[in-house]
Amino acid sequence: MDTQYFERMESEVRTYSRSFPTIFDRASGAHLWTVDGKQYIDFLAGAGTLNYGHNNPALKKALMAYIERDGITHGLDFWTHGKQDFYQTLEDVILKPRGLDYKIQLPGPTGTNAVEAAIRLARRITGRSNILTFTNGFHGVTMGALATTGNAKFRDALGVPAMGAQFMPYDGYLGEGVDTLDYVEKALDDGSSGLDNPAAVIVELVQGEGGINAASIEWTQRLAEICKQRDILLIVDDIQAGCGRTGKFFSFEHAGIKPDMVTNSKSLSGYGLPFAMLMMRRDLDKWSPGQYNGTFRGHTLAMVTAAEALRQYWQDDHFEQEVQRKGEIIRDRFADLAAMLNDSGHPASERGRGMMRGLVVENGDLADEITEGAFERGLVIETSGQGGEVVKCLCPLTISDQELIQGLDILEESVRAVIDKR
Amino acid sequence: MDTQYFERMESEVRTYSRSFPTIFDRASGAHLWTVDGKQYIDFLAGAGTLNYGHNNPALKKALMAYIERDGITHGLDFWTHGKQDFYQTLEDVILKPRGLDYKIQLPGPTGTNAVEAAIRLARRITGRSNILTFTNGFHGVTMGALATTGNAKFRDALGVPAMGAQFMPYDGYLGEGVDTLDYVEKALDDGSSGLDNPAAVIVELVQGEGGINAASIEWTQRLAEICKQRDILLIVDDIQAGCGRTGKFFSFEHAGIKPDMVTNSKSLSGYGLPFAMLMMRRDLDKWSPGQYNGTFRGHTLAMVTAAEALRQYWQDDHFEQEVQRKGEIIRDRFADLAAMLNDSGHPASERGRGMMRGLVVENGDLADEITEGAFERGLVIETSGQGGEVVKCLCPLTISDQELIQGLDILEESVRAVIDKR
Amino acid sequence: MDTQYFERMESEVRTYSRSFPTIFDRASGAHLWTVDGKQYIDFLAGAGTLNYGHNNPALKKALMAYIERDGITHGLDFWTHGKQDFYQTLEDVILKPRGLDYKIQLPGPTGTNAVEAAIRLARRITGRSNILTFTNGFHGVTMGALATTGNAKFRDALGVPAMGAQFMPYDGYLGEGVDTLDYVEKALDDGSSGLDNPAAVIVELVQGEGGINAASIEWTQRLAEICKQRDILLIVDDIQAGCGRTGKFFSFEHAGIKPDMVTNSKSLSGYGLPFAMLMMRRDLDKWSPGQYNGTFRGHTLAMVTAAEALRQYWQDDHFEQEVQRKGEIIRDRFADLAAMLNDSGHPASERGRGMMRGLVVENGDLADEITEGAFERGLVIETSGQGGEVVKCLCPLTISDQELIQGLDILEESVRAVIDKR
Amino acid sequence: MDTQYFERMESEVRTYSRSFPTIFDRASGAHLWTVDGKQYIDFLAGAGTLNYGHNNPALKKALMAYIERDGITHGLDFWTHGKQDFYQTLEDVILKPRGLDYKIQLPGPTGTNAVEAAIRLARRITGRSNILTFTNGFHGVTMGALATTGNAKFRDALGVPAMGAQFMPYDGYLGEGVDTLDYVEKALDDGSSGLDNPAAVIVELVQGEGGINAASIEWTQRLAEICKQRDILLIVDDIQAGCGRTGKFFSFEHAGIKPDMVTNSKSLSGYGLPFAMLMMRRDLDKWSPGQYNGTFRGHTLAMVTAAEALRQYWQDDHFEQEVQRKGEIIRDRFADLAAMLNDSGHPASERGRGMMRGLVVENGDLADEITEGAFERGLVIETSGQGGEVVKCLCPLTISDQELIQGLDILEESVRAVIDKR
Repeated sequence: MDTQYFERMESEVRTYSRSFPTIFDRASGAHLWTVDGKQYIDFLAGAGTLNYGHNNPALKKALMAYIERDGITHGLDFWTHGKQDFYQTLEDVILKPRGLDYKIQLPGPTGTNAVEAAIRLARRITGRSNILTFTNGFHGVTMGALATTGNAKFRDALGVPAMGAQFMPYDGYLGEGVDTLDYVEKALDDGSSGLDNPAAVIVELVQGEGGINAASIEWTQRLAEICKQRDILLIVDDIQAGCGRTGKFFSFEHAGIKPDMVTNSKSLSGYGLPFAMLMMRRDLDKWSPGQYNGTFRGHTLAMVTAAEALRQYWQDDHFEQEVQRKGEIIRDRFADLAAMLNDSGHPASERGRGMMRGLVVENGDLADEITEGAFERGLVIETSGQGGEVVKCLCPLTISDQELIQGLDILEESVRAVIDKR
Repeated sequence: MDTQYFERMESEVRTYSRSFPTIFDRASGAHLWTVDGKQYIDFLAGAGTLNYGHNNPALKKALMAYIERDGITHGLDFWTHGKQDFYQTLEDVILKPRGLDYKIQLPGPTGTNAVEAAIRLARRITGRSNILTFTNGFHGVTMGALATTGNAKFRDALGVPAMGAQFMPYDGYLGEGVDTLDYVEKALDDGSSGLDNPAAVIVELVQGEGGINAASIEWTQRLAEICKQRDILLIVDDIQAGCGRTGKFFSFEHAGIKPDMVTNSKSLSGYGLPFAMLMMRRDLDKWSPGQYNGTFRGHTLAMVTAAEALRQYWQDDHFEQEVQRKGEIIRDRFADLAAMLNDSGHPASERGRGMMRGLVVENGDLADEITEGAFERGLVIETSGQGGEVVKCLCPLTISDQELIQGLDILEESVRAVIDKR
Repeated sequence: MDTQYFERMESEVRTYSRSFPTIFDRASGAHLWTVDGKQYIDFLAGAGTLNYGHNNPALKKALMAYIERDGITHGLDFWTHGKQDFYQTLEDVILKPRGLDYKIQLPGPTGTNAVEAAIRLARRITGRSNILTFTNGFHGVTMGALATTGNAKFRDALGVPAMGAQFMPYDGYLGEGVDTLDYVEKALDDGSSGLDNPAAVIVELVQGEGGINAASIEWTQRLAEICKQRDILLIVDDIQAGCGRTGKFFSFEHAGIKPDMVTNSKSLSGYGLPFAMLMMRRDLDKWSPGQYNGTFRGHTLAMVTAAEALRQYWQDDHFEQEVQRKGEIIRDRFADLAAMLNDSGHPASERGRGMMRGLVVENGDLADEITEGAFERGLVIETSGQGGEVVKCLCPLTISDQELIQGLDILEESVRAVIDKR
Repeated sequence: MDTQYFERMESEVRTYSRSFPTIFDRASGAHLWTVDGKQYIDFLAGAGTLNYGHNNPALKKALMAYIERDGITHGLDFWTHGKQDFYQTLEDVILKPRGLDYKIQLPGPTGTNAVEAAIRLARRITGRSNILTFTNGFHGVTMGALATTGNAKFRDALGVPAMGAQFMPYDGYLGEGVDTLDYVEKALDDGSSGLDNPAAVIVELVQGEGGINAASIEWTQRLAEICKQRDILLIVDDIQAGCGRTGKFFSFEHAGIKPDMVTNSKSLSGYGLPFAMLMMRRDLDKWSPGQYNGTFRGHTLAMVTAAEALRQYWQDDHFEQEVQRKGEIIRDRFADLAAMLNDSGHPASERGRGMMRGLVVENGDLADEITEGAFERGLVIETSGQGGEVVKCLCPLTISDQELIQGLDILEESVRAVIDKR
């Protein structure tokens, strides 16, 4: 297995190949295989992109049939049969049952495109430039989106500032007993706070890269109310937490709110194909023709698998309930692991929502030891959070109970091994 | 054919569906078919994304085989077998024969990602922030790239300025007899010109969206020399003009220069799949791990078709020669059309390089009349340039002579009809 | 008295003439006279610029002698006798006794110039761009300084964002029991907080325009320590709170800290003449010659009066003690007024330090009624704070007890009248 | 004479004291005296600030009388008797006779304040953010103004970009035979040029710091017409070229145009006192109260001398004619010096308008040798231009013929000495 070739040819910017220095070849469901045939259980799942597993058979079938019959692959922003099927399925299966009346923009096939489009539109509509964003938020790394992303790694040595956004503390950031929205509300209403009146608030309701921080239902509802009262647009960035990850299709369903705009990507195509979408309240569609574009905004293969995923999993509430049930399994096991760590003098806790869950340990080094041990034992799992101190479970939502428990068992072994070693 | 459904569901930002208000379903080679079975010849070809035609059979075969065997579809930035094959084919078929020793970054699957990565890296390396760009340049619409894009449509009402770049006149912009690089060079060396010492120059050697303006060989070489003398990085944006469009794989081969960085996308996957790449001189790879990321930077299906496209078309110079030959056919026919227009009192001219050619007419209205007439007659063709006054031919490079001539005949009919009507 | 002439000729941007719609002619000490001979006591005193009173006789004498003998008036940044005298007096009377070893830059004669110079220098030295500033801070309105000024009035409809700074909550901003530096420290050390590692912190230790908020000694010391530990420069903006206003020459003396840079202006010349100064730790003087300039940075008349003011008032601690004593008089009377308001159902409180004191009332309308009533009764006094809810006493430090009490009596009458009317 | 004291106490940013390393004490008319009694003729005159000479006796008399009677010194933006006198004199003596109907804003006492206010107002009015400025322009160094200043020295290592302006080539910048406004006009009307539709054009009609480049009358008129046709505001920055320097009170009078806004400072007070003014077309006064402020915008002493200067010199055209006459003397002598240099193999030329004149020599080193020699011989004179290659005459407009010729003779000696040495 020639990993040196990669090291020679590929930029130093590479990251996951440092944690998992092997060459993968095939994948199916919750499993990955290397070129040498070694099998791994995948608790990373494309960082939230493979909610329905690798190469999901139902989606694969639809995809191959479409390719086979020479359906449009690349359609710019033409109207196509594939796009129509996607829109109609989305409307029938997702939007209507949830009472949502959104218009759709396909802004290019990556999440950061959807975020750039959302904040640009919010600025156009309101005539204001500021976007309020939160500590530990991650919304992409192109320059417009980057302004709303908290992680210093991306903001360092940029040459020009990523501007146009201001950060406020996320739910829980100031510790127990402090509702951070008190500060937000005060600063919004205080003309000298330095917080410019924002066009929009952009928020993840569970922060993925930021460390699996889940905003409480009350905080979320109050945030929505704060926005509404002040005519500030609320953009829920559901790129990582959407498509069922939290136990509902949209992460905001738990709080019963209706955002003004929603960004989706990652698991939207269902098959790992690049795809992204911005949904906006019908009256907010103030774009002029062509004012935001991109060559691959008509990636029709992704629409084909996206539509099929909706049909397969979202026509009733069975899948949601399964996600919630499996989420509880993970939560309970993570709670046990946290207890085990605490008992041995290593402060730990669990957190998250649905099947987006984190095991928070003492520091990034400890978390790395755990995930490295897991990899050696056949489990792909990553960390997140500002210091990488959160072991993050993003396994496919379609994972079987048996696979899930197998993966969790491996994780437990790794945790034990780390405890024993110390 | 229910186009009203689209109008209700889709954002007003849509653009091509305004020029071509029909619903497409299938495509193959140089042809598109609507859901009603109507056939069109495609001289737009994904705005330069389908150099090898729609659903190219050889690439389709490789793609389906890969999907069939559950090859990794979405691989984050894991090392994968599919990626290795792409890198090695790229090195063997393209880089080595051209004496290029680049490292590769896959920054996310859209051109604008590659541009953002390139300018960010240039700033990191040099510690300077300014990017010198040119009138009529188009390099993407995310905020970092947008600063280098001239088109006011995208820069209007942004809320925050797209900053970090300064514009200089492209070759020919100041009219015959003025070498615009005289101005560039003077301003670079004049400490009071207001032109901040740039980290990099970014340039398309044939401007696609800007109106098929082809920089002369001499201008290109002088620009490269100006950069070299002053330690300014030269980024050639080959997103639209690359992958053979101008008659060479890279547009800069005509001038015999070796840029410091090259961005590629559009036809890179060969099948219309989202894909983009930044190549950089080996010593410029100063990234820290993970400093630029994106969920879909491991879209392996695109690597599979990209590698296959290189194997199919670039192992010898036959394809290049064919492109050059067909480019001359288009040039001659465009020259005839220009003459026809001139004779009837409508100033016109032709320009371009290889199979990237434009027919420049009096104004955008006239150009629109021609392309609308062409669409009615079964030809999909678009305009570009600041006022839309350039009828732009971007037909597949693989088009047969018969199809090409058929398309050109339709165009000629449309031009005649417009002349007759006036 | 022809105020209409002013309304016709003068821009609508005018502000104080709206509160005090009369034409002033002469002034001396704590008194102003209109062209009609009406006398006012001045509790505004040039918004902190006239700490030694209007046209202070000792300074006036020095000024006239200098003008009379044709001393250099405008000296660019020549070395002049007048400048030497100022530097030496500053060093002997102020710096040495306080153990401060600063170098001096005269960046142009307004406070905002000094702030622009300070933040530019901080960025040069550290290579970082961010400036951490605080809610309700005011540091000037030119674009560089404006980024650090919280007041939305100045930041509204700018066309381009005032960028390069991030706001954090000032001492007390999050209410009793929350030390806002917990948040600052956490955000600084959290790589995903969105708070970019700052070049410097800029802070007023008593916020003038922001509503006479005085940072506690502990908070100030902790802030200095936070900066020191992280190699962040601490800039104390002493433009309004300096020159004795708080009971010490510098506002930071109370906390026993030594800032890395200090900005001064307003009362620095002592006579109301435009003057500003940046002092920096000796090793921070990393300017290249001429890298910051301005035509009036050698306004020598201001240096003459500045030196004389230092000689007159700062050779021993008598003046400081007087300021502290009179500050207590104001504090006690303001506490009485607050009690009076509270008793009649109008929540109020007093705050401040030295002779920089505020009476905080229910809202801006109530404060305006009080100050309007005071003006009718012969007292010039203004409001500050984000909603204008703070009646602000900035009377000359040299005011006599009799004048002070007379002014406070007028204020009390106005408060009573407002209470009675409601 | 203790210059070491200055070196120890004063920031390295100092500049003129490097060219003239002596300590000045007194000044009168066109003369300066050091503390040691050495006399110099002053051809720098405060870099254009002392058009009426140092400590002009008539102005001195008015100033001392005002101080003596305790006229308001520092008046914030109160209405004062001194301000009224200034406004009325300005209107009667300057504005009305020239058919100008401007409103006045006193934005703080430095030129850069006036520029910041002008561009901010232009942005508010138009809703556009871009300011078109020119190569070699100098408009100040605070961050808003700096964006329009070409000199790299000030723009280097800023930390954040000085944004919001775009540069175009000034008259003559592209060489003989190229009208740079062809480029400006084309770029303005080309939606893809990258030149964003500007709120305003800011221009000096004779560039002072930029090297005494005088825009031709035709270019100036065409620029005004270009602005008018496109609803772009024309701001003439008359800070250095105004107050009679070019032979008219305003530099734009030569071209017969009426700018939308005019900035003034430098010689406006006439006595070297800090003062600045923005004049705007009556209908452009769209400020909200207090939206631009500054502590020293009511520096009334400067208004007193400013009004007196207008009364003394501008009630008829005698002074203008004298300036023009003396300007011709300088022009002729500079032409002779240029010829002398040319004859000895050192390419040179003269340029400028009125008494704002430059001798352009081969390079900055040669210019420095000349001015250093002049200083040794008793003449203070400086260089400008991007490489410092322009010996710049800005002597007082009130200089006597005898003094003028004495100064020019010294300059000639210095030029001869330099030629002889080479």
